[in-house]
Amino acid sequence: MDQLFSYESLYQFTYAVFKAMGCSDTDATTATTVLLSADLRGIDSHGVARLSGYVRLWEVQRINTTPDIKIVHETPSTAVVDGDAGLGLVVAPYAMQVAIEKAKKVGTGWVSVRNTNHFGIAGYHAMMALQHDMIGMAMTNASALVAPTFSIERMLGTNPIAVAIPAGEEPAFVADMATTTAANGKLEILQRKNGEAPLGWVQDKEGNPSTDANILKKEGALLPLGSDREHGSHKGYALGAVVDIFSAVLSGGSYGPWAPPFPAYVPMPENMPGKGLGHFFGAMRVDAFRPAEEFKQHMDNWIKRFRNATPAPGHERVLIPGDPEREYELERKVKGIPIVASVAADLKTVGDRFGIQY
Amino acid sequence: MDQLFSYESLYQFTYAVFKAMGCSDTDATTATTVLLSADLRGIDSHGVARLSGYVRLWEVQRINTTPDIKIVHETPSTAVVDGDAGLGLVVAPYAMQVAIEKAKKVGTGWVSVRNTNHFGIAGYHAMMALQHDMIGMAMTNASALVAPTFSIERMLGTNPIAVAIPAGEEPAFVADMATTTAANGKLEILQRKNGEAPLGWVQDKEGNPSTDANILKKEGALLPLGSDREHGSHKGYALGAVVDIFSAVLSGGSYGPWAPPFPAYVPMPENMPGKGLGHFFGAMRVDAFRPAEEFKQHMDNWIKRFRNATPAPGHERVLIPGDPEREYELERKVKGIPIVASVAADLKTVGDRFGIQY
Repeated sequence: MDQLFSYESLYQFTYAVFKAMGCSDTDATTATTVLLSADLRGIDSHGVARLSGYVRLWEVQRINTTPDIKIVHETPSTAVVDGDAGLGLVVAPYAMQVAIEKAKKVGTGWVSVRNTNHFGIAGYHAMMALQHDMIGMAMTNASALVAPTFSIERMLGTNPIAVAIPAGEEPAFVADMATTTAANGKLEILQRKNGEAPLGWVQDKEGNPSTDANILKKEGALLPLGSDREHGSHKGYALGAVVDIFSAVLSGGSYGPWAPPFPAYVPMPENMPGKGLGHFFGAMRVDAFRPAEEFKQHMDNWIKRFRNATPAPGHERVLIPGDPEREYELERKVKGIPIVASVAADLKTVGDRFGIQY
Repeated sequence: MDQLFSYESLYQFTYAVFKAMGCSDTDATTATTVLLSADLRGIDSHGVARLSGYVRLWEVQRINTTPDIKIVHETPSTAVVDGDAGLGLVVAPYAMQVAIEKAKKVGTGWVSVRNTNHFGIAGYHAMMALQHDMIGMAMTNASALVAPTFSIERMLGTNPIAVAIPAGEEPAFVADMATTTAANGKLEILQRKNGEAPLGWVQDKEGNPSTDANILKKEGALLPLGSDREHGSHKGYALGAVVDIFSAVLSGGSYGPWAPPFPAYVPMPENMPGKGLGHFFGAMRVDAFRPAEEFKQHMDNWIKRFRNATPAPGHERVLIPGDPEREYELERKVKGIPIVASVAADLKTVGDRFGIQY
């Protein structure tokens, strides 16, 4: 049975945990806001459910809570940021802000980040651009769980891409997607329910189609968006590869199968070709292309036209990317955030460790 | 039975057709080179098979063969180009060159294009960046043939994305993909063979799964990458939407269901919100992030590692995006380009119209 928590109570608890890990007030505020934006937006796998994972990475000294995050190379429209092994939840907003500042000056800003950790949901960072009338983009590589087309080896992470585009009267267009058929979080939900995965989400260690939601624990792999070659999995593989290269090869992070694993008990890969995970951010000032008001009027027109596309029988309406998450957010801010029993137990353990009331 | 043509003979014929349509020597050279790069690279649907389509668009005065292509707005890292209804085959390389010149100065360049036409294969334009040690990107919107998730209405084109990334000793990484499960060209091949489409490529006009390769002629639709909601079609829909917005909403082109149709006999949509098709190009100087030699060494390492990923049983090897097209190109430059009978007949008609020996 899920327990309902108010946003405020989860916020206070999470903030206290980050403080106890040694974060400054500012960093704890940022990390908490970013982490909980996932719970608010209904992406439960990326919110407080991951808090204990961050704590364990800090315990094995893979997360530095007092990092010296800095720009190590730049041009007018680009930068490389070294996250100094900080929380991705803190490094990512820093780097996205660098992209935004560059866009203010020369129209666009593009920042590749190395030596960082998991950054929560990509959508949060992309959406930072919206208030500046900019288009925002965010992507990251991640622990290798995905087999390329024609392979049985786990070579890529679920490597998400987020794109946030401002509108006028309409809410913004916000796409935030793993480049796999299904995000790992979807599998985790099935595991808790002892459910079966649809065919096309995963394969077993021999490369056979599988419906076992626990197959990743048996050397199986997630499949790239498209599922199989006939349905375009080579495209999902290519998208995940582009995310890996932009995030980690451009920055000097560790890429492909050498990406540092999220579970702290998994040993780090040998012969890592770079430092830590990688992210990539972009910001494009809308008025670097056409007047912002004009653009936003056309985005309203775009959104209204797509929202009014003829629905298929059995469906009420066509969605705009970002609609479901925004509806979750409106509801959960008021009614609270449901936390499943296993996550609640996990949070209690974290609280006990630091002597924080939960 | 396919006929084999040498690249040179197809080049001379196509060049003569573009000249007869009124293109300058320079534009005819560019248009021919871009168009035939599709035939060389094995993307037969986008090469000379489309030549008669371009001629028909010119006949109904939707293509201007003496365009005044120009930058109408710019910042140090961005530009909007108006293609003056020129051939996309000519407008696109112009705009990509603008992106490259901006990247030389400020690290990256981003160009959105309006009032243009179909530009051949996206990969050609993205690959223009490679010789400058830059990453290239190209995308375009197109005639609406794709239904968003939960819809039966054709709202988006197959809206391709290409990303070209330079390497050192290894050949470049070149992804070039429609954001649908299968490109329209794949359907056309099945139509010629009277074949059936795999489930997941198209739906009928009621939104039911279909295997009819001719379903687009019966008000059916192509499906976004992912095929259905359970397999991530909302991601393919979001990707296609991002391409549409970057290409046509940013530039002032005509977007979504209002994109001008490629077949000249299809009437133009009413109340078009912008001018012509839209494209979007990006160029990022590798050394705006890290030294080019260092980046290219790591790309070699990335490519070798992925090429050596354990293959699934029944598969010889794992491919790098761009491998199949490069192999086609090597072979076809030497052995010639196979042209199916219907396309050969079509070319003969075009030749007869202009009195060009075929």
